[in-house]
Amino acid sequence: MPYARRREALRALLPADVDALLVTDLINIRYLTGFTGSNAALLVVASDSEDDTAEGPAADEADERTQFCTDGRYTTQSAQEVPDLPRLIERPCDVALLRRAPEGLIGFEARSVSVADHMTLLTAAHDGPLDIELVPMLDLVEGLRAIKDPGEIDALQRACAVADRALEDLIEAGGIRPGRTERQVGLDLDQRMRELGASDPSFETIAAAGANSAIPHHRPTDAVLAAGDFVKLDFGATVDGYHSDMTRTFVLGSPADWQREVYLLVELAQAAGRAACVPGATGDQIDAAARDVIGDAGYGPQFSHGLGHGVGLQIHEAPSLARESPSTMVPDMCVTVEPGVYLPGRGGVRIEDSGVIRADGYHVLTQTSKEFRVLA
Amino acid sequence: MPYARRREALRALLPADVDALLVTDLINIRYLTGFTGSNAALLVVASDSEDDTAEGPAADEADERTQFCTDGRYTTQSAQEVPDLPRLIERPCDVALLRRAPEGLIGFEARSVSVADHMTLLTAAHDGPLDIELVPMLDLVEGLRAIKDPGEIDALQRACAVADRALEDLIEAGGIRPGRTERQVGLDLDQRMRELGASDPSFETIAAAGANSAIPHHRPTDAVLAAGDFVKLDFGATVDGYHSDMTRTFVLGSPADWQREVYLLVELAQAAGRAACVPGATGDQIDAAARDVIGDAGYGPQFSHGLGHGVGLQIHEAPSLARESPSTMVPDMCVTVEPGVYLPGRGGVRIEDSGVIRADGYHVLTQTSKEFRVLA
Repeated sequence: MPYARRREALRALLPADVDALLVTDLINIRYLTGFTGSNAALLVVASDSEDDTAEGPAADEADERTQFCTDGRYTTQSAQEVPDLPRLIERPCDVALLRRAPEGLIGFEARSVSVADHMTLLTAAHDGPLDIELVPMLDLVEGLRAIKDPGEIDALQRACAVADRALEDLIEAGGIRPGRTERQVGLDLDQRMRELGASDPSFETIAAAGANSAIPHHRPTDAVLAAGDFVKLDFGATVDGYHSDMTRTFVLGSPADWQREVYLLVELAQAAGRAACVPGATGDQIDAAARDVIGDAGYGPQFSHGLGHGVGLQIHEAPSLARESPSTMVPDMCVTVEPGVYLPGRGGVRIEDSGVIRADGYHVLTQTSKEFRVLA
Repeated sequence: MPYARRREALRALLPADVDALLVTDLINIRYLTGFTGSNAALLVVASDSEDDTAEGPAADEADERTQFCTDGRYTTQSAQEVPDLPRLIERPCDVALLRRAPEGLIGFEARSVSVADHMTLLTAAHDGPLDIELVPMLDLVEGLRAIKDPGEIDALQRACAVADRALEDLIEAGGIRPGRTERQVGLDLDQRMRELGASDPSFETIAAAGANSAIPHHRPTDAVLAAGDFVKLDFGATVDGYHSDMTRTFVLGSPADWQREVYLLVELAQAAGRAACVPGATGDQIDAAARDVIGDAGYGPQFSHGLGHGVGLQIHEAPSLARESPSTMVPDMCVTVEPGVYLPGRGGVRIEDSGVIRADGYHVLTQTSKEFRVLA
């Protein structure tokens, strides 16, 4: 179980004067404990400052003071999922844990706590017998989550494999053909992913045909696929909480020259983006590597979004591969690479893989071929 | 289009000294504008205080100063969904609108704005040329949403009909039978709802068999349905953004006496709860009406959750039907009535309808029979 190790890594990130962190973001709680329910809080108590190496007995002792709280719906589930922490069943969870916090500075997750909840926490802190001060903190757990451990990469790999397999099965069954609607294709793909073990699609599947393929985030409609269309599918599978993300674009029937040209350009840009995904590179450098290929061909304004993003317990998480992104790549970050060119009224192409950054570069997890592919 | 009328109703709720409300909760934005994307903000400007009737020309003029903001992904979609408001395309949306707010007191939604976003808004307010003060506000739009207009009730009715039909089709197809797993039954039901027009299930469908039916919020597992089991299905369909919610419990094979007894008790309690849903009743009174039936039979501790909740654009919303709930019922509130009795290790029963409160009492929207039903 990786959870105690993750909590130890979190304690090492806490400023020296902070005595505990109140974790309220449910995704962060899942990352730190394994709990998958819809209501919880976690109080991660700092290591004693006398021993700030945060290893060995001091770290173990600090983890023993870490407390988890949920409500009565999750008594059984939390006992199964979080067997290694003291569990409190009480509402509201954040207040319950704050009342049991050590005296001193208690950090809270400023992106997760609403102004209304903050007022409630302030009241609880001031009404209690202890001298507690609340300090806002940003992105501590999110920073840890950006670098995946082997179990996480394995889950992402399985999520990618489900999406790959569902797409191949859909194609083999003739599911992408003139006469079907975007909605039918999307639902078919979603159903196949579920049957292959996905708990859910990673996000609302994009199935876009013809001129609709030029809309980057198109929702499937009753538009009917026709010969000559680009068909763009952007989708993923959620497996054990981890989200894969991939896009493939096909042509139905006989491709026109402009379709082949745009496709090959995006394919080239995607390869350039992947090649730039090396440790030490920054998000904006990687984005530029792909964007320059498209810009040099004169289609710069038609690539209207960022190149990629981290994937994991959320479909969009750190790091960002985009203009002005300062994130520096580190081994075991998992990111998408997804350039696109969109020609309004005609059609668009996006090609996207999920993959992991290793010492020697980008290893794709998405296995589906990226070759130009014509479906009957 | 009901949106201008809803914004007018919201302006009537603003305190006299508040000059505008910055709406950032996406569900509230959908309610007030029709926008269904994933990023937006809305600035609802108050009516001029000289004319505080909030009707007629002054209200129209105030609505003309209302502004909507989203990002570049939703340029086309927002033009279609929000044709009646000036639209700004800029990130971050909340800051963009605050910079265009009138001078004075600007309310914000304290449950929706995080402490981190609040800090950003404060900076924007103080850096601008205008004298702007931010004031936290609670549940203004949520209060409006609790009372449904005819279009909303129609959408809920259609959502209930999809769930009813999917269940009946599942039963007729023999989909609830010994040998199938909980997961298969749940996926089958979800797929049928989608094929019948649901955009999604209302929430993660609960399919619980045998001893698992005694867990109020059980997630479907690979547990196999067997003769003699209670099978409890709690599910709903999302149609046009509105969420239906229903629970039915069946017996497979030959029912035991205790199963019949528990079922009839819950059926009686559910009828008592429905009968108590009249205008003027409070949430705790309605809860007690059903709870007393169960308590009088000696099963009080085995009914471990509240009686019901509002349904609408969210699966759980105001009002609450539960112990200590002070909500007073008003015509056109839509609520669930869902008592249950759970016997750990043996099985449990819950029966739940969605319905609407009218002047003459509770009208069920869920049409599936609640009679004790044995499936082969």
